[in-house]
Formats: sequence, C-alpha cells, structure tokens
Amino acid sequence: MIYITRKEHFNAAHKLYNTNWSEEKNLAVFGPCANANWHGHNFDLYVTVKGKPDPETGFVMNYKDLSKLVRDSIIERVDHKNLNLDVDFLQGKLPSCETLIYEFWQLLAPVIPRVAPNCQLHALKLFETHNNYAEYFGE
Amino acid sequence: MIYITRKEHFNAAHKLYNTNWSEEKNLAVFGPCANANWHGHNFDLYVTVKGKPDPETGFVMNYKDLSKLVRDSIIERVDHKNLNLDVDFLQGKLPSCETLIYEFWQLLAPVIPRVAPNCQLHALKLFETHNNYAEYFGE
Amino acid sequence: MIYITRKEHFNAAHKLYNTNWSEEKNLAVFGPCANANWHGHNFDLYVTVKGKPDPETGFVMNYKDLSKLVRDSIIERVDHKNLNLDVDFLQGKLPSCETLIYEFWQLLAPVIPRVAPNCQLHALKLFETHNNYAEYFGE
Amino acid sequence: MIYITRKEHFNAAHKLYNTNWSEEKNLAVFGPCANANWHGHNFDLYVTVKGKPDPETGFVMNYKDLSKLVRDSIIERVDHKNLNLDVDFLQGKLPSCETLIYEFWQLLAPVIPRVAPNCQLHALKLFETHNNYAEYFGE
Amino acid sequence: MIYITRKEHFNAAHKLYNTNWSEEKNLAVFGPCANANWHGHNFDLYVTVKGKPDPETGFVMNYKDLSKLVRDSIIERVDHKNLNLDVDFLQGKLPSCETLIYEFWQLLAPVIPRVAPNCQLHALKLFETHNNYAEYFGE
Amino acid sequence: MIYITRKEHFNAAHKLYNTNWSEEKNLAVFGPCANANWHGHNFDLYVTVKGKPDPETGFVMNYKDLSKLVRDSIIERVDHKNLNLDVDFLQGKLPSCETLIYEFWQLLAPVIPRVAPNCQLHALKLFETHNNYAEYFGE
Repeated sequence: MIYITRKEHFNAAHKLYNTNWSEEKNLAVFGPCANANWHGHNFDLYVTVKGKPDPETGFVMNYKDLSKLVRDSIIERVDHKNLNLDVDFLQGKLPSCETLIYEFWQLLAPVIPRVAPNCQLHALKLFETHNNYAEYFGE
Repeated sequence: MIYITRKEHFNAAHKLYNTNWSEEKNLAVFGPCANANWHGHNFDLYVTVKGKPDPETGFVMNYKDLSKLVRDSIIERVDHKNLNLDVDFLQGKLPSCETLIYEFWQLLAPVIPRVAPNCQLHALKLFETHNNYAEYFGE
Repeated sequence: MIYITRKEHFNAAHKLYNTNWSEEKNLAVFGPCANANWHGHNFDLYVTVKGKPDPETGFVMNYKDLSKLVRDSIIERVDHKNLNLDVDFLQGKLPSCETLIYEFWQLLAPVIPRVAPNCQLHALKLFETHNNYAEYFGE
Repeated sequence: MIYITRKEHFNAAHKLYNTNWSEEKNLAVFGPCANANWHGHNFDLYVTVKGKPDPETGFVMNYKDLSKLVRDSIIERVDHKNLNLDVDFLQGKLPSCETLIYEFWQLLAPVIPRVAPNCQLHALKLFETHNNYAEYFGE
Repeated sequence: MIYITRKEHFNAAHKLYNTNWSEEKNLAVFGPCANANWHGHNFDLYVTVKGKPDPETGFVMNYKDLSKLVRDSIIERVDHKNLNLDVDFLQGKLPSCETLIYEFWQLLAPVIPRVAPNCQLHALKLFETHNNYAEYFGE
Repeated sequence: MIYITRKEHFNAAHKLYNTNWSEEKNLAVFGPCANANWHGHNFDLYVTVKGKPDPETGFVMNYKDLSKLVRDSIIERVDHKNLNLDVDFLQGKLPSCETLIYEFWQLLAPVIPRVAPNCQLHALKLFETHNNYAEYFGE
C-alpha cells in the first residue's frame, strides 16, 4: 500500500459568525474572524490517496487524474468564492477549517474509487494560514 | 548602508471591480477576482529599511520597533478586513496588489525616520499568493 | 474525529554533552554539537490536537486558545533561553530534539483537556533545522 | 517510541514509458512525462526512523549517522543519474515516485537496525515536485 | 514605477558537457553534472515586470496575462524537455542556469511591451535547486 | 552581467549585550536577546556574485567553487559556535545580523576575485529567523 498526495490551492473569503448568537458573543469567540464584511485566505489542500501501484504504469493513481478530480469536485466550487454565501454544499454551516475539510471529504471520497477502482481517499489536510491546518481521515 | 527586512502578515477579503464598468467587462478583465461576494488572501508583507548600524546596538533599527511600527501603521488597519469596504485609506480605490503597496508606502515612509532618525524606508514587497507579488521603492 | 495543528516558534541555545563522558568521547559522538560555548537553533513546533468539532463554533478547539496554551506552557519557558542552563524542566537532561519533544508532551498533554474538555493532544513535531525533526505521539 | 526524520536531496532525470505499449498509448497515459529524451526533478526524500531514545545520548539515532546511511544506501546511487538507465536496482522498472519509494525501502529497511539496533525504518516520503509526493510505510 | 513578479515552474533534463573537451576535463569541471545520461531539475522562474499601474485596473500588468505570456514564450518550450536536445533556441549552448536565463530574456523582453505597452521586463530569476539561482537584468 | 546566488547555512548561539550598559538598559533595548546564557538561531546566508558567464562553461562562477569558498571563509568559522565568544573576527563586537553581514563581507569580498578573476561579490543576505533578514551590498 503506497500513499500519494497532491497539493491544490484556492483563494476564498469567509467569516466565522454564529447567527444564533449576539454580535458581542461572536466577537468574543471568533475575534476578528467574525468581521461583518469578511476576510479571506489562500488555502492549500493536500489530498492523499492510498492503493497499490499498477505494474503497467507504476502509479497508485495518475497525479494528473487526481488533480483533475480534486479541481472538478472541490476547487472549482470554492476558488475565488465567498464560503458563507456562494457555495451550495456549505449553506448554513460555519466555514471553519474543520467544517471545510469534513465537507470536502464527503464530496471527494465517493468519486476516487469511481475513477481509480483500487484506490481510496486516505487523508485531507487543509492549510488556512502558514500556522494553522486541519486534517481528516474519514472517521 | 545596510538593509534590514521584517516580514509581517495579514489576512483580508477583497474584489477587483471597476464600478465604472459593466459586469461583463469586469468579468472579462478581472475574471473570478471580480466575484461579487469577494474572495481573499493571506498577504505577506516584507518591509525593508536602510541605514547605518548604530555602534551601541549593532542595529540599523531594532526589528521589534520596526515590527511594531508596521503593525500599528498598516497591519491593524487591514488584517481580517474587507479591503474594499473597511479600510479608510483605500476608499474608492481598486485594491490590487499594486494599489496596496503604493498606499502602504504613503503611510509608512514618513513614520520610519520619526522613530529611527537615520533610517529610510527602502522597499515594500507584498505577496498576494505563492506565485504573485508586487514591489515598490518609492519612486 | 478531526485533527488540528498549530505551529509555534522559539529560538534557543543548547549543547549536546554527556557530563559522564570525557571531552573526547563527547566530540566523537556529538561532533560540533558538543561545542563548550553552545550553539543554537530556530525551533518550529507543530502541535496537533484531535477532537470532534463543536457544532456551535465549527472548531475542534479555537486556534487562538491552542496557541495561547502552547505559548504559556512551553514557548515562554524556552524562547530565547539556554536549554541546558535556563529551563527548570530540562535540568540534568540532554536537550536533544527527542528529549525536548518528550518533555513538552508531559507539560502539554494534561492541560489540553482542561481547556478543551473533548480534545486530546495527538502529536508534537519539532523541527531543529530545515533537515531534522522529531515527532512524538504519547506512547 | 519517538520518530525522527532526516531530509535528503537528489537531482535526477527520468521518463515514464512502458516499453510494451505504443508511442501513442504512452503519450496518452503519461503525457509529457513520456518525452523520449527525458525530463528531470529535484527530489526531496524524508526518512523517518522510530525507536526509544538512548539515555546516554538523548538520540533515537544520531541524525548524522542516519544522513550518512541514506546517502550511502540511496542518494549516491541516484543523484545526478538517469533513473531509467544508470541505476542497477531500477533496471526494467517504471521509475514513478511510487516505484522509487518502494525500491528505496528495500535498500534502507534492512540496514537501519544494523547501524542502530533498536531502531526501525518507519516511513519514506518522496517529493517529486512541490505539488506531488508519495509515502510508504513498509506494508 | 511598481514592479510585479510572477512565478512559473518547469521540469527538465540537462547535462553540462563541453563537447570540445575530453571526458576527463568535463568530469573535472562539471562533476556529476556531466553525467552522460543526463540529470534534471524542478526549475522555478520568477519574472519581474515594471510599469505604472493603470488607474482603471490597478494593474501594472494583469498577472494572468503575464503568466500566459511566460508560459507561451518559455515554459511550453522547456517543460518536460531535455534542454540539450529538445529546445531549438538552446541548440549548441551549454544549458547552465546562466545560459538559460540569458536566453529566456531574449525571448521574453521583446514581447512584454507588445502585450503591455507601458511595461518592461525588469528581471528574471531562475532557481535550479533550493540552494542555487541566477538573475539577469538585461545588461 | 549575470548574478548567481548560493545559499549556505549555519547554526550558532549569541546574545545581544552592550557591556558598557547596565543590565537594565540591556534588557530594555534588547529584550530577551540579552539573555545572559545566550540563545541561538539557524542562519541562512545567501551569497550573490556577479560576472560574465565564461563561454566554455556557461558559468559566472562554478556553484561548487562558490560554495566551497563560502564554507572555508565563513561557515567553518561560525557554524556550531558562540558568536560572542568563539569567533576571532567578531571579538568585541555586538553580533547583530547587521554586524555579521558586514564582517562576512570583509572576509569574502577579497577572495572571490582571487578564485574567479572576473567576478565580484555583489550582495550578502542573512536570515536570522523566518521573519528577519539583513542585506549588504558593500557600500
């Protein structure tokens, strides 16, 4: 079993704001991340797939196919978007790094084996800043 | 003459949109950067000051003083903000990387010599993404 | 279960020197790391916590709270210090990357659940140079 | 159990080309990676070893010994080489990132415990570009 | 005058070998870079253009236009190629980092002002490895 | 005229402490950098040389020769050392980033043209942390 990872990138705006709370509570919990008019990030997404290399190609999965799948399933839907307003699968959710990675998993895990039958999504890792990232392994 | 550089960081939302143009022209010129609901970036700002080291400290300027000056003059006013809506000195301007760096210079150049009398601002360098940055040298 | 990671930083001096050994043996084993007058590093510490995101915040644990906890428990006690001489919890220990990470775990693991009741420390990763790092998972 | 990692580096040429296939099929599957006259990469190899720190040194394994072992076993045989033509242990194999990491494991896993009796190779991670890497854990 | 920089990337094989010299002299001067069967690199190319921002766009030059120009003029002709064998504008030249950057300048400097009339190519910077790069300013 | 840059690395301890001042004044000016028992850094040194490429090699100067020169002239004398105590050419000087780079220039500038007659040292750039660096151009 070998693990391959592809890095993709997107830029987006968001805010962390719980609409059930007062403005004061939002600022107390989320600080400047609750700014009404949004802020944003350069997000780096690392997608790890595991499988056995195909002896005819040497590949667990072609990096280019993996890149295309991630772009079609995720990046096109979030790049240069407002994560609170513009993204259907995030409607009504708090777009924290943790939420994003969990929702990205739901989108990507089922489609990997359709394109690469002997492969599985193993991990997602999402950098929000140089200093903060979240990881999810599907369970 | 020695040059010292301090890196600071901020996260912000913006869009590139010329209000004198049609929606179509904005999309044609700015592409997804014109998204109505904003997008955002992690910005890295490199500030370079030149001067002669003080023999008593070995410093052109104390990195901590420089950091504080940049944070007070610039970072606090743009971090976790919407650059189109929330920032007084950017009102009515297109917040491209070039515009930002030019306006940051206007704020920072006069205050450096007040704090460090023998120093001058030499350069600003602003990364908008891993792949794009702008520089300004004051002329 | 989602994993979040926060990166913190400190600068410190140390030497690798076993006081039960001769000077010659120390130099043979530790090379220039045994230099009597110390050397030093910029250390990058990655702290990974696991837990379930709180539906009200979208957070496993607030990155800012995690940062504060790591700074209070570890960084303040080692930053700009001599790891052999100045740090109480390292007295009489060889401050290798492995020792540091093990001792940091003892300090940090108990306090995480006090601040974030549903979270656990999952991993520590400590870079001593660009090319060398150690990891510990608590067992 | 503590895990230590050492990063090493090599530059090499290769191509991805299945000699049982037509030129067309090779180009369809491997794209520009099948270029007849080769292309190349700067490869970064991360080698992770696990063990208990020796109380006399504080080391799982001396980073310098690990570096020397990786250089002698792997780097010297692939650095500034053509991976398809010049490397005996890759003869007749498709030198994908996955193949390389699997073959590197076969070379390195047996020699680690000979040099460091209480240590085991835990993981290899090989970056082919900034955006693509493979990992292997020996099973 | 503001300077904007765009980073592009390519992978290629090459060797450093002077055909007027003996094998021995080539090895003495170029070391493993003279390996008969080539080696290769991930090259990072930074392209800096200077000009006045257009008040209607805030841009010295649209980063996307600059990216496209660099890809069309340079990257497509060298990416996944053998720099000694496959590239017409390098025929008969020693493809050192210095040679590459000088030849890239000849290709790119004339086309910048055709696309962006008020702009000029200011600098090219080419990383061959993490530790080595060359720069050229056109004179 | 082409500029080539080589990156080298060293680890060292130092403190910033003016022996003509009181303890209080040292702490007020230098903060934790004045810690009596030292602290330390991983320093990255970028050395830029300018010259015309030799048509027989394509090189301004062989990167390996440049690396050896920098290691022999500078790195061997400061790596794994205490910059206040162990380094002859820094005796009695405040080892700030600015002082280091100025003193490194004095050592390196004269020897470059002896090894590479048509080359000159153009710039030194020294990173003390990820966020702070100094540059010197010889005047």
